[in-house]
Amino acid sequence: MTTFEDATAVAKAGEGHYTAELSAGFSIGHALHGGYLMAVAQRAAVAGSPHAHPVANSWNFLRVPRPGPAEVRVERVKTGRTAAVSRATLVQDDQAVLEGMVTTGTLDPDAVASYSAKPPIIAPVEECRGDPAAESNAGRQIGLAHQMELRFDPATAEWAHGRPGDTLEMSGYFRLRDGSEPDSYVLAVAVDAFPPVVFALGSYGWAPTVELTWHMRAVPAPGWLTGHLSGRLVSDGWFDEEVELWDSTGRLVAQARQLARLAR
Amino acid sequence: MTTFEDATAVAKAGEGHYTAELSAGFSIGHALHGGYLMAVAQRAAVAGSPHAHPVANSWNFLRVPRPGPAEVRVERVKTGRTAAVSRATLVQDDQAVLEGMVTTGTLDPDAVASYSAKPPIIAPVEECRGDPAAESNAGRQIGLAHQMELRFDPATAEWAHGRPGDTLEMSGYFRLRDGSEPDSYVLAVAVDAFPPVVFALGSYGWAPTVELTWHMRAVPAPGWLTGHLSGRLVSDGWFDEEVELWDSTGRLVAQARQLARLAR
Repeated sequence: MTTFEDATAVAKAGEGHYTAELSAGFSIGHALHGGYLMAVAQRAAVAGSPHAHPVANSWNFLRVPRPGPAEVRVERVKTGRTAAVSRATLVQDDQAVLEGMVTTGTLDPDAVASYSAKPPIIAPVEECRGDPAAESNAGRQIGLAHQMELRFDPATAEWAHGRPGDTLEMSGYFRLRDGSEPDSYVLAVAVDAFPPVVFALGSYGWAPTVELTWHMRAVPAPGWLTGHLSGRLVSDGWFDEEVELWDSTGRLVAQARQLARLAR
Repeated sequence: MTTFEDATAVAKAGEGHYTAELSAGFSIGHALHGGYLMAVAQRAAVAGSPHAHPVANSWNFLRVPRPGPAEVRVERVKTGRTAAVSRATLVQDDQAVLEGMVTTGTLDPDAVASYSAKPPIIAPVEECRGDPAAESNAGRQIGLAHQMELRFDPATAEWAHGRPGDTLEMSGYFRLRDGSEPDSYVLAVAVDAFPPVVFALGSYGWAPTVELTWHMRAVPAPGWLTGHLSGRLVSDGWFDEEVELWDSTGRLVAQARQLARLAR
């Protein structure tokens, strides 16, 4: 079992009832990484499903959990041949931390797209630098930086050197440090792994996710994931962040949008 | 009360329990319009909330309802000063038709965006034509076509004349025929009002929505809504559809993404 599998494992404790142990290894300051929490809850939601792939995942972030025991409650709301839908709630101390809906389907690993957008233009991974956020916030992010590796495209990483720009955009590469190849659980972490896209505008600081929906579009090939982040509107204390993940063969494997609050 | 308000009205029948009468006026063939169903469920979710605006709305389409009595069950899962979150389920004959999560917040109608993408480039409404889908499927869509008016940008409407293209894109205008000005409920209809974006590629036919998440980003001004549809991937029987709605003053008021099935 990899470090990641161990940290996101759930154990069945009854019908629609799973226990988990939230790992301090995925901490960011006093909080736990949102993508990590989604991966834990997703394991329980997919465990009882007739389909392997979480094609649609909508999560609401309700409270900040701490490392330690938690449980996931799952209720199936539809079981279909094409898609099954479950509601899942990650609970700690009898309070909902994360709640959402997971739709599972069965994706064909050999599917050939009849239409696809083009992958982002990004420098090769060798020319991309390590995680500037982890370096500049070493004390705060050290837990997470030990789990995952981010490399930033120099073309959209000027913000990391104190030179924010005027475009809501960021590109880079992601992989787990334990050697795990991408699967649907790694994708859940990766869609929320990069710094908030508003860092590109110089709006640094804690930017809590309120709602995040992501879709798994294909079974990823081994290797680095390429991430492209963008956003459309920063207004009234809210911003959106779109994340696309492409696998090493240039296929779009995940799409996400989150609504988040700006740091005060 | 406008026709639209009447058709989407809910009546409180108990704590977290609302009744509704689904209107045949919003039918498409034997089904009811998805955006209409979201608007009905949204009324119940927002009714008991301390905040006026549904900033995040994630819906799973589970079963096809028929016109007639239905109910909405709402459970509050978080009440915060910035955001409140409810789970809502539209039920007919004791079966869940639509289930999702609604996050409410309070948007400032006078908010000025600190960053905004640019509105789509589209011909003026006078140069855009009526609804080709309604015309070509008059028998099937007549109910819906009486409720809402769509006008298509000629630049992305070649598909309506039997000349599909190779770009997953469509632009046009939307308004309700009863004179209702856009609000959060009209936005719920409008994010799902245009024909499936895959029509642009010539993939015509019924394309059932599996999951749709939309975000209300600003309080819309009166007048036509401008819609821009796009998609990123058609593969393995699934496609994504992104919809942006802009108000008559050029502000981004709603963003949506849905995951849907291709017509067979």
